[in-house]
Amino acid sequence: MHEPNGLPFAELPTMMETDFFNHRNVLITGGLGFIGSTLARRLVELGAKVTVVDSLIPQYGGNLFNIEGIRDRIRVNISDVRDPFAMAHHVRGQDVLFNLAGQTSHLDSMKEPEADLDINCKAQLSLLETCRKTNPAIRIVFAGTRQIYGKPDYLPVDEAHPIRPVDVNGINKTAGEWYHLLYNSTYGIPCTVLRLTNTYGPRMRVKDARQTFLGIWLRRIIEGQPLQVFGDGTQRRDFNYVDDVVEALLLAAASDKAAGKAYNLGSGEVVSLKALAELLLELNGGGRLELSPFSEELKKIDIGDYYGNFTKFEGELGWRPKISLREGLKRSLEYYRRHGKEYWD
Amino acid sequence: MHEPNGLPFAELPTMMETDFFNHRNVLITGGLGFIGSTLARRLVELGAKVTVVDSLIPQYGGNLFNIEGIRDRIRVNISDVRDPFAMAHHVRGQDVLFNLAGQTSHLDSMKEPEADLDINCKAQLSLLETCRKTNPAIRIVFAGTRQIYGKPDYLPVDEAHPIRPVDVNGINKTAGEWYHLLYNSTYGIPCTVLRLTNTYGPRMRVKDARQTFLGIWLRRIIEGQPLQVFGDGTQRRDFNYVDDVVEALLLAAASDKAAGKAYNLGSGEVVSLKALAELLLELNGGGRLELSPFSEELKKIDIGDYYGNFTKFEGELGWRPKISLREGLKRSLEYYRRHGKEYWD
Repeated sequence: MHEPNGLPFAELPTMMETDFFNHRNVLITGGLGFIGSTLARRLVELGAKVTVVDSLIPQYGGNLFNIEGIRDRIRVNISDVRDPFAMAHHVRGQDVLFNLAGQTSHLDSMKEPEADLDINCKAQLSLLETCRKTNPAIRIVFAGTRQIYGKPDYLPVDEAHPIRPVDVNGINKTAGEWYHLLYNSTYGIPCTVLRLTNTYGPRMRVKDARQTFLGIWLRRIIEGQPLQVFGDGTQRRDFNYVDDVVEALLLAAASDKAAGKAYNLGSGEVVSLKALAELLLELNGGGRLELSPFSEELKKIDIGDYYGNFTKFEGELGWRPKISLREGLKRSLEYYRRHGKEYWD
Repeated sequence: MHEPNGLPFAELPTMMETDFFNHRNVLITGGLGFIGSTLARRLVELGAKVTVVDSLIPQYGGNLFNIEGIRDRIRVNISDVRDPFAMAHHVRGQDVLFNLAGQTSHLDSMKEPEADLDINCKAQLSLLETCRKTNPAIRIVFAGTRQIYGKPDYLPVDEAHPIRPVDVNGINKTAGEWYHLLYNSTYGIPCTVLRLTNTYGPRMRVKDARQTFLGIWLRRIIEGQPLQVFGDGTQRRDFNYVDDVVEALLLAAASDKAAGKAYNLGSGEVVSLKALAELLLELNGGGRLELSPFSEELKKIDIGDYYGNFTKFEGELGWRPKISLREGLKRSLEYYRRHGKEYWD
């Protein structure tokens, strides 16, 4: 069970899931992005008929290189989730929708709040309306975010934690996930929300820090530049390797009991940003890090430590991350050493 | 201290507040609506220079009759909060913005979710952006709603209660109030959110139940028709007479310590819908009520009992409702007996 480029996938736990996707019609919004394209690769292996939709907006995560090797085995449609006519066409006949398209940059959401709203709220509502009218049996898994919890009251953060976003992106992502849960409870469209924490791995955006700071770190370390750590580097975070997130998405879609629910992802490994940078330098066999004070802009939306409690998802669906941070970072470094120019040139 | 049509206003607690509004430039969105127009009347008495903006969308609360008697003492502009160019013009030079424009119908929000989103989210964000760019010193009071709490975990509901809306309107109103609090914390624009419960009184929409079921009850009782109570009539609610809400809005705008905060309104009097209907029949001197089973549509978004804890607002700003339910209903009946045809013909 290998990806076209030779990286092994995490083993999937059950045959049920493998069977579930065989010959299914599956739509992925944001399907040329980091998580979407990794999911598409796995679904192709599982025998699904995959359509990916992506806007290829330059500031976002879409990259045609992400589907290198499966390009002739999936349908690719360049269109925007804000286009209700295109989306109505795509939704027709699909069994499963992995709804991953979104604006993810916190800083961009403050600079262009209306674009963030159009993508993370308006397009989501429009897509759900389309499903309600034309394909209410479709199963939907929505990519939510830990960002909605804001600055944690306690750690690890479970799903009962107050929702208290600290930026426009967090507010809009909250509305987006609530629409999904509402369309489940009101119209019976099976929707599951996974609240992702920091996801990393091959195919992530590494051109800048828009998707995660780990992206720009990978680029900088490969280019021989110092890693910038904001603040004093003691902020702790949890990280999921992308294959583990893909497995979570598949499990959520294949399970009836996940409908109408929101689950945190998370990791057993919690690290400070400084320790993470040091691990990356060690794996790289050299390099250096630089502590930089927070900009005023960043300070206002900084949330301190965050790590998630994923025991609800583990208990109900049997998911647990399998790839260690060390292993995941090693694979990521290897990937960008080989393919980096496809991501930052 | 009387309204032009002779109804006494609740006394205001301090001279400070009276002074605060004298010669101030005040903008009210939704200013031809129920609460907005009552607020405009009071502000005219307090010496403010009032501009009201209203879209006069037929399904909403705007009604030109609401400003009868003060029409030549205020500026009236018919425009929509979704029009960013008009709003940029209106915001200029204002000291205070009472941001009351909104879509309020829960059922309409499910039927036309995108219109609700445009008004309750997109226009709010656009208005805040306009304030940030052109008038960041403006004080804003935003009309929030108890609807954001959904089905209560405990009663009375305080501000620490989880936010868990059960319809599109509740989700969008949550985003709307969070944008305001975010623009306060991030950009220092003084914004206060009042989470209103059921507001009633003269000038409310009574043509139908879009604003509150109490509206249609007033119309039906005057027209000699039975009052429809949904479910078994045991659901309990709290009600604020509009003058008390106007006082709360004024206090919030005039107080520096309210900036960046969200407060519940509420009432010491909590009644079941059946008891409320009976009180109305008693005040009317006759009529009858009819228990109707919930429609499937209503059942899905019913929240059971709700009443709010307003001790935070009372403690910090000294507000307490002054008009009893009996007195408020009496005034409302009088008003619609005299002016009903301006509201339902």
